[in-house]
Amino acid sequence: MKELKSRILAAAAGDLAAIEIALKRNLTPYYDLVARTAEHILFSGGKRLRPLLMVLSARLCGYNGNEDKDYAVIFEYLHAATLLHDDLVDGGEMRRGQTAAHHIYGNATAVLTGDFLLARSLSLAARTRRPAVIDVIAQITESMSQGEIHQMDKKGDVGLNEAEYLEVIRRKTAVLIQGACHVGALICDAAAEQTEALKSYGRHLGFAFQMVDDLLDYTADTQELGKVVGADLREGKLTLPVIHALAKAAGRDREAIIAAVRDPDFSMDRFGALVALLTKYDGLAYTAQSAETHVAAAQRALNDFAPSDAKALMTDIADYALLRKA
Amino acid sequence: MKELKSRILAAAAGDLAAIEIALKRNLTPYYDLVARTAEHILFSGGKRLRPLLMVLSARLCGYNGNEDKDYAVIFEYLHAATLLHDDLVDGGEMRRGQTAAHHIYGNATAVLTGDFLLARSLSLAARTRRPAVIDVIAQITESMSQGEIHQMDKKGDVGLNEAEYLEVIRRKTAVLIQGACHVGALICDAAAEQTEALKSYGRHLGFAFQMVDDLLDYTADTQELGKVVGADLREGKLTLPVIHALAKAAGRDREAIIAAVRDPDFSMDRFGALVALLTKYDGLAYTAQSAETHVAAAQRALNDFAPSDAKALMTDIADYALLRKA
Repeated sequence: MKELKSRILAAAAGDLAAIEIALKRNLTPYYDLVARTAEHILFSGGKRLRPLLMVLSARLCGYNGNEDKDYAVIFEYLHAATLLHDDLVDGGEMRRGQTAAHHIYGNATAVLTGDFLLARSLSLAARTRRPAVIDVIAQITESMSQGEIHQMDKKGDVGLNEAEYLEVIRRKTAVLIQGACHVGALICDAAAEQTEALKSYGRHLGFAFQMVDDLLDYTADTQELGKVVGADLREGKLTLPVIHALAKAAGRDREAIIAAVRDPDFSMDRFGALVALLTKYDGLAYTAQSAETHVAAAQRALNDFAPSDAKALMTDIADYALLRKA
Repeated sequence: MKELKSRILAAAAGDLAAIEIALKRNLTPYYDLVARTAEHILFSGGKRLRPLLMVLSARLCGYNGNEDKDYAVIFEYLHAATLLHDDLVDGGEMRRGQTAAHHIYGNATAVLTGDFLLARSLSLAARTRRPAVIDVIAQITESMSQGEIHQMDKKGDVGLNEAEYLEVIRRKTAVLIQGACHVGALICDAAAEQTEALKSYGRHLGFAFQMVDDLLDYTADTQELGKVVGADLREGKLTLPVIHALAKAAGRDREAIIAAVRDPDFSMDRFGALVALLTKYDGLAYTAQSAETHVAAAQRALNDFAPSDAKALMTDIADYALLRKA
């Protein structure tokens, strides 16, 4: 695991450094408070997964221009915008081990800085002069905002089933990672099969990442995770570990899980008892297995690309999705 | 005044009806709560000024396609998105005589529905397949989000001067109306002089509308206005009537104005006393005069267009900006 992470970071070092520079260069707010709020969320230890995947996808399709990093930051700005709005929506206190932006700068500034970052994404998309790229970016935003509302609206609803959960995480998470890979292909005018393969890689990776995220909320420790464990449950947000366990449990066990979902102020003892139930009914194992299936599908999607450093790195990133601790 | 309004509504009736249909047709959310929240803000008696101006601007430039209404709604969606976010930012209780959306549906839904409407605007802009149009839309959003943050950040700051106020209202209000007129010209591939003339019309009209809005917050009655009079002051938002009076007043009068700005819980007596001071120091008259100057400039910008129904209507709309009561 440590070895995999080191290998990824070494292989991606050049791209990641260029992405950092592009993130600063393309921000260009006129008003200082916007700059400070945007920088708080943008430069607080993000993995830069999405821009990196756009750059690598373009490289797999033979990109040889020098604007890839400027387009890649679109996906980090979009990601940061949704973090700003979602943390506020979810009432999240911490983000990446730091106080969430809306706690420092206030809700209003967080909302409006999110809007600014959305707008920057669109401006950069417009600069590609490619309507297909712009369309992807607009669709991502439509999809994410609705996925988040859908998720929020279903908080505390123990009737949420796996199909609906998958629809929510597709909209909330998978479309953005898929979009990054898709745009990488689009800026190269890649062939349809290559484009579809990269979309498939991104979609499956997105599902895997979100499932592991949902799993970590039950299994990680708070310090490693950089946010509070059990946060999903505390917000009444049902994710796959709980959904699967609820589908299988009956009687008192089922009632105990439901009671935990409905009690926002649960103790760590109660949380431990719930995790034991999620284990008993395979909720954790099933989620891990689903994530593995998606990782395998993501890696399979790259089969027809010739071996290259970029392909090896994308394969490693998919493996890392499963092994990460935060 | 009543006659002018009737004339405008009669002349615009066909376009306004087509715009209403396009507003419904282009919304297409997948999730019902998004639809309800968006419809609450979209179909609650908006004047449809922005889409109407796009349609009329295109007509002035000889547009003869049938997609103008679909592009025009971009500007109403953008407007609605900013209303959703701004009402939340400002803590506004009422909007167009109704309870503000965030009070009914909650902050989170209001933020995310705003995001959805922003995204719909961009999707529709992308459909024009015109990068210049997309660029205008992205710039509008960047500008508005920063203008709103700027305004919010300066709340209660009695040092705010007229130049800075003008910069804020340019970003918050004028760019959107200017953008609607601009895009009307762009979708016709209008000549540069026509495009510039329509941008100028929109910009000046935008300034005039905002100044009259700021004036009405001191002079209208709550029922006619559809929101609470004195709201700007209650939020510590300094607008031109106060800025101008503060620049001229000294001694106790100046202190009384400052005290009113700093007291969010002022009584209607105190509000009356402030309005008297704004009158004494020409704050109200100066604002009205500034609005008139902008209306005249907007109308002048149309000089080189041949007489037409569309031009007459745009001229009337500019006059109406000054005379409206809400």
